[in-house]
Amino acid sequence: MNTINAKFPKKSFNESIMEYNDEKIILLGHGSGGELTHQLIQNIFRKFLTDTSLDESHDSVSINLNLGSEYTAIMSTDSFVVKPLFFSGGDIGKLSVIGTINDIAMSGAEPIYLSVAFIIEEGFKITDLEKIVKSIADEATKNNVRVVCGDTKVVERGHGDGLYINTTGIGRVLQSKKILPKNIEPGDFIYVSGDVGRHGMAIMSEREHLDFKSQIISDCQSLWPLIYELQQNKIELHCLRDLSRGGLMTSLVELAETSECNMQIIEDQIPISEPVRSACEILGLDPLYVANEGTCTVIVPESQVLQIKKNQAFLNLKLIGRVLDKVKEKEKAKVFLKTLYGVERRMFRLMGDQLPRIC
Amino acid sequence: MNTINAKFPKKSFNESIMEYNDEKIILLGHGSGGELTHQLIQNIFRKFLTDTSLDESHDSVSINLNLGSEYTAIMSTDSFVVKPLFFSGGDIGKLSVIGTINDIAMSGAEPIYLSVAFIIEEGFKITDLEKIVKSIADEATKNNVRVVCGDTKVVERGHGDGLYINTTGIGRVLQSKKILPKNIEPGDFIYVSGDVGRHGMAIMSEREHLDFKSQIISDCQSLWPLIYELQQNKIELHCLRDLSRGGLMTSLVELAETSECNMQIIEDQIPISEPVRSACEILGLDPLYVANEGTCTVIVPESQVLQIKKNQAFLNLKLIGRVLDKVKEKEKAKVFLKTLYGVERRMFRLMGDQLPRIC
Repeated sequence: MNTINAKFPKKSFNESIMEYNDEKIILLGHGSGGELTHQLIQNIFRKFLTDTSLDESHDSVSINLNLGSEYTAIMSTDSFVVKPLFFSGGDIGKLSVIGTINDIAMSGAEPIYLSVAFIIEEGFKITDLEKIVKSIADEATKNNVRVVCGDTKVVERGHGDGLYINTTGIGRVLQSKKILPKNIEPGDFIYVSGDVGRHGMAIMSEREHLDFKSQIISDCQSLWPLIYELQQNKIELHCLRDLSRGGLMTSLVELAETSECNMQIIEDQIPISEPVRSACEILGLDPLYVANEGTCTVIVPESQVLQIKKNQAFLNLKLIGRVLDKVKEKEKAKVFLKTLYGVERRMFRLMGDQLPRIC
Repeated sequence: MNTINAKFPKKSFNESIMEYNDEKIILLGHGSGGELTHQLIQNIFRKFLTDTSLDESHDSVSINLNLGSEYTAIMSTDSFVVKPLFFSGGDIGKLSVIGTINDIAMSGAEPIYLSVAFIIEEGFKITDLEKIVKSIADEATKNNVRVVCGDTKVVERGHGDGLYINTTGIGRVLQSKKILPKNIEPGDFIYVSGDVGRHGMAIMSEREHLDFKSQIISDCQSLWPLIYELQQNKIELHCLRDLSRGGLMTSLVELAETSECNMQIIEDQIPISEPVRSACEILGLDPLYVANEGTCTVIVPESQVLQIKKNQAFLNLKLIGRVLDKVKEKEKAKVFLKTLYGVERRMFRLMGDQLPRIC
């Protein structure tokens, strides 16, 4: 059976590449599911990702959701294709954990479990992979989220842009806390949790090697602590939405259309840092459409406004607008921006793509 | 505010491309999270994927697991980078549903929920995307699995090989049914659920435009009906493993090492179809290392063998070997193949990658 022996020479070939190259790189064989995949998992992934579920070495894992009858499970998925992979304030690893944690948190849910799947380009530096896996592990630990399953595929050189990551998250939420766009009501108040546009502009400056006076650092961070705090303080939440791709305005248009309520936003109330504002002006970009990775809108009934105002924990929440009336049948809900010049402009979703590959 | 108006010309530019091209293609803007993403979701994804969870238009969805105290949840993730995207017996859409369903089923669990995340290359034909999304929807419906959340990213031309898909699945299993490699015991019997090597060789023939006399059709199919039937018939299952990347032998080596039990496999008992055998001989490949996408090993205690034998539903299960003794401390478990010539050969994991990009 020549065919059985035929594969053996490959081993020494692959291994000699690995040994004689000073810089160890990903080979196609790392995605074969065979010996090299096994080594990659043992030497890189398991070095940092240490959840007991991974010890089972099985095709799927059991997850204990501790769901009493009062809880419901929450699921969300996101792929990350950010370019460059390392940027000011994070890397694709941190981003892939935070992105999905935040999507789960937007249902008012506690993020608990994550799957992580890698699509790696042949030739990718193993030292870079190691940094990214470490970053995933650190961010998961910091946020008390367990990475319970994973997958690795390798694509040929020139076909994958280094690394793409998918994370899918599972969380849990009290069934009584339905936080959904449909809950938005006329008269609700609209907040943002911080200044907008930082993530997109951090990526952009990195990519274009722009040297702004003050470096712009991505806002990449978990929103769960804020949402947890709001819930602990019994603030009634109608809707939450993180302002990722498409930025603040695209998110608001989505929410307006889903809830069928018009909205009014006051431009000079929207927090934008000076470096982001200048960078956007130079590049001709609108900060209201630039992506964020740790900033959300919080929409609450009027009755909650005083409580939010008097609580030091919510100092960063800025009131930027209100929900107007419900639309008439078959009409599309509109978002109006009261501009710095006092005129009202109707806002739309982001058209085209002003900044591709930001997450 | 020039910056606000600056994005509008892009709309007509993008739209004119869309209108004047006979063949509609994916643009970078389809991944922006803005208007084009919205259109893609409404016109393509939602046309076929119709789960009510998707109506919520939210960052994450609630999933009702109906987990009484006797059930536990099961999670698995897999990315699919198969090349070509369409092959005999399926396409990347069907594969991405089946692959994750099978991983869930290998814990003896019923697959219930799926997330689907697309990484699409700019320029990808929308008609092809439509076929693939339809295929996902059809396969999910057929297998009674709900696609509850999704994500779309677009990468520049030349960076993504058409389409990559990640699916993550959630299932549920009776807590009493722990099906794990660690449960494998000396004396257990090892079955395969069908003939091996079909998926890998179907991809290979498609890729290399090989014209074998009889076309090889991928075994891509759900294994849950078989596992369900085994459980309904109260067959005690020690372990299940689908024979995907790395094929039969790599899976057995993994299981042997995890369970710390040696195994013996009888080569002439392993079912291999004639077309697969010939194709492998021509190409110098070993069918025992070629990937499958709808074939698994079933490992059971000896007490179950008669029940399996006398049940018509399990006619396709072929007995191929046995579990030998537990290894002594710190030894690595070995898999021995009793070859057609009567000699025993120690088998290893697949080295290198005889067939990259098969799933």
